[in-house]
Amino acid sequence: MIEYRNLRVALLGGGSVGAQVARLLLEQKEELANRVGASLELVGILVRDLDAERTVDLPRELFTTDAESLILGADVVIELMGGLEPARSYILMAINSGADVVTANKALLATHGPELFAAADQVGAQLNYEAAVAGAIPIVRPLRDSLGGDQVKRILGIVNGTTNFILDRMDTEGDTLEEALRLATDLGYAEADPTADIGGYDAAQKAAILASLAFHTNVPLDSVYREGITAVTPAQIESARKAGYVVKLLAICERLVDAATGKEGVSARVYPAMVHRSHPLAAVHGANNAVFVEAEAAGSLMFYGAGAGGVETASAVLGDLVSLARRHIAGGPGVAASSHADLPVFPIDSITTRYAVTLEVTDEPGVLATLAGVFSDHGVSLALVEQSMTPAQPGTASHAPVSSTATLVIGTHEATEAALAATVRDLAENKFVTNVASVLRVEGV
Amino acid sequence: MIEYRNLRVALLGGGSVGAQVARLLLEQKEELANRVGASLELVGILVRDLDAERTVDLPRELFTTDAESLILGADVVIELMGGLEPARSYILMAINSGADVVTANKALLATHGPELFAAADQVGAQLNYEAAVAGAIPIVRPLRDSLGGDQVKRILGIVNGTTNFILDRMDTEGDTLEEALRLATDLGYAEADPTADIGGYDAAQKAAILASLAFHTNVPLDSVYREGITAVTPAQIESARKAGYVVKLLAICERLVDAATGKEGVSARVYPAMVHRSHPLAAVHGANNAVFVEAEAAGSLMFYGAGAGGVETASAVLGDLVSLARRHIAGGPGVAASSHADLPVFPIDSITTRYAVTLEVTDEPGVLATLAGVFSDHGVSLALVEQSMTPAQPGTASHAPVSSTATLVIGTHEATEAALAATVRDLAENKFVTNVASVLRVEGV
Repeated sequence: MIEYRNLRVALLGGGSVGAQVARLLLEQKEELANRVGASLELVGILVRDLDAERTVDLPRELFTTDAESLILGADVVIELMGGLEPARSYILMAINSGADVVTANKALLATHGPELFAAADQVGAQLNYEAAVAGAIPIVRPLRDSLGGDQVKRILGIVNGTTNFILDRMDTEGDTLEEALRLATDLGYAEADPTADIGGYDAAQKAAILASLAFHTNVPLDSVYREGITAVTPAQIESARKAGYVVKLLAICERLVDAATGKEGVSARVYPAMVHRSHPLAAVHGANNAVFVEAEAAGSLMFYGAGAGGVETASAVLGDLVSLARRHIAGGPGVAASSHADLPVFPIDSITTRYAVTLEVTDEPGVLATLAGVFSDHGVSLALVEQSMTPAQPGTASHAPVSSTATLVIGTHEATEAALAATVRDLAENKFVTNVASVLRVEGV
Repeated sequence: MIEYRNLRVALLGGGSVGAQVARLLLEQKEELANRVGASLELVGILVRDLDAERTVDLPRELFTTDAESLILGADVVIELMGGLEPARSYILMAINSGADVVTANKALLATHGPELFAAADQVGAQLNYEAAVAGAIPIVRPLRDSLGGDQVKRILGIVNGTTNFILDRMDTEGDTLEEALRLATDLGYAEADPTADIGGYDAAQKAAILASLAFHTNVPLDSVYREGITAVTPAQIESARKAGYVVKLLAICERLVDAATGKEGVSARVYPAMVHRSHPLAAVHGANNAVFVEAEAAGSLMFYGAGAGGVETASAVLGDLVSLARRHIAGGPGVAASSHADLPVFPIDSITTRYAVTLEVTDEPGVLATLAGVFSDHGVSLALVEQSMTPAQPGTASHAPVSSTATLVIGTHEATEAALAATVRDLAENKFVTNVASVLRVEGV
């Protein structure tokens, strides 16, 4: 075996991803050394509890609770602790001590990204984070490098596996949200507290990271509009299916020109939306992730794979590590993150999308004309109207005069959130409308 | 505007990709300068004929026929001429003069890759080639960097848009190969001489590049087994469809252990194969490309998008340029290509795959047992047999004794090419077999 120079690798966190990274580092030591041209020596794993049970059998002497000694003795620090603190302080300590850093911490990057990138840039350190978005799927590097000479127009991402699993079950098996969530929990796809997933918080963090990267600008987490999937009903899923659509929780990053001011800006938002079944994203089943990118020159691209899982995410972490170690050996500083564009993030009210509104109405002459008038009063134009009679209840005498009801599905052209919200308010108060059954945005058109 | 340092960019070739690269470099000059931290100055475009018509309106003074002056005056050389010479000599001249290089030349890389990578490595030059495989789809960088810490097990790629367009037309519209090829030519998807595409030569070059990259070894072009699509018939497509499959021209790169010797090695091969309709590759329509990667830790990933086209390919070239220019500015040499694994490439005869064999047979008692015996004589075990009666010819008297024929579709378990070839030879000579209608490999299982 060739004698290689040694790179000391410190691992912060020994959870499901950390344990797999440690295992792969130890098992593939020789192969990785050949690829990098340097030996990657795992010098320690920071854990909270030295005696905790591990999912992977690892040499006990690697575990430590002494963060500072571990970090200051490393050439490369891999942060897999999650959370904001102490992860942030540890990464800054690593960067300032001259180490390069790999992190999978989406919450931290979405919250403190600019501070961390600036710190790395100042000392020429590398800071890689492929695993922070969409698990094993390469998306950070393609956006930063492969599309580095192109203009990204829009990203539609299924970036949360738990919610995709739930919505897919509701669509394909007719589960309720509660049933699907219970199954996701049983299968280990959902956490004991599923709020981060089903509330869309996890997807919002990823949207902030993707939008910042794609548009060379800083998109703060609190500027990302967010709706989770908790309000999605089986009736909505069914109605979408009948119209040839499927409901997906999407992280949407878009480059826009504000119609009113002509000013350029971006939008980052997360909500459940209807996607036509012919769209490649509609075929993303189970807990898989996919990121659909539309770029000026490259056209439409899609990146598909496992969005989570210990060993899958470990693959992305090791890819970052190998790439960073090769650069460490070759010499020369890291390349700075690019946020020169400094674009404003437009609030959700100024965004235009298409909508599908499902109304239950009394079936009388003139209903359609009246309701179409409500849309046009707010400047919302209609693309499609479908009416289906609600079947008469069994036992109703056929000769009795019955005030029957009908279901109307109304698809709109592009409209602002504000105009649609005002329309829906007026619809709810209209005497012909017995129920506004569903309002869903339509994306991917 | 910030005053940036200048990077002199030379473009070799002013064809459909070259013209788009030049246009984008000029149009996006300021934006690219902000991203890179240096101004990318297009100093000249090498062309054969200064007066030829261009697809894009470019400043006439950029065109030159003086290769040497252009190359020696550049910091970065973009080679988009295609062909082996003089492209090879020009790239070596650029590397040896201290320039970094971007190329989209798959033929050159598949043939002289090791020489070019060694030359770049020796002087610390960067040599990027994302556009050489699958056009705008980022696949080179994901394989090299993102999966740099993982073990790629298999790649199944639809890497030739022309043949995918043709096979897709045959499948969805019932075209013959000739009809679909004529349409592809009319639409500009196929060259006047379509041999490189439909003969599988283009896909074989890409397979050599992908296999070399994924397995950290040198896979020479002449070790890639190659079959084109010229023998694919509407009957095969129809028979595949009935069985729930679609026929795709696949570039297959696989890491293997030879069953006989226990030796590790790789296989790179191109042929039309049956892919089950539930596989993500089956949904790749028209002239699109997709690369499906199976890795030890990351699991299954797919990369999808436009595989060709001037502006799409230009996106990949610019991504390489921006990434390389950032490194050029940051300082430090390029990172060497990794080919340490030095694995043997197994010949096609030792590869095992599944097969679907369609036979026309006389419908007599004992036929199935006899034919099953032919397979088992060669150690090929059967996974599935489907028999369909060939409808009686109209006008045949119903009471006359007719020697009717039947169609048998036989699916095998994994078998070697050699065993299957011997089986098919024997089948063709069997008295019950009137025609071996189709032999197709089945992939993606």
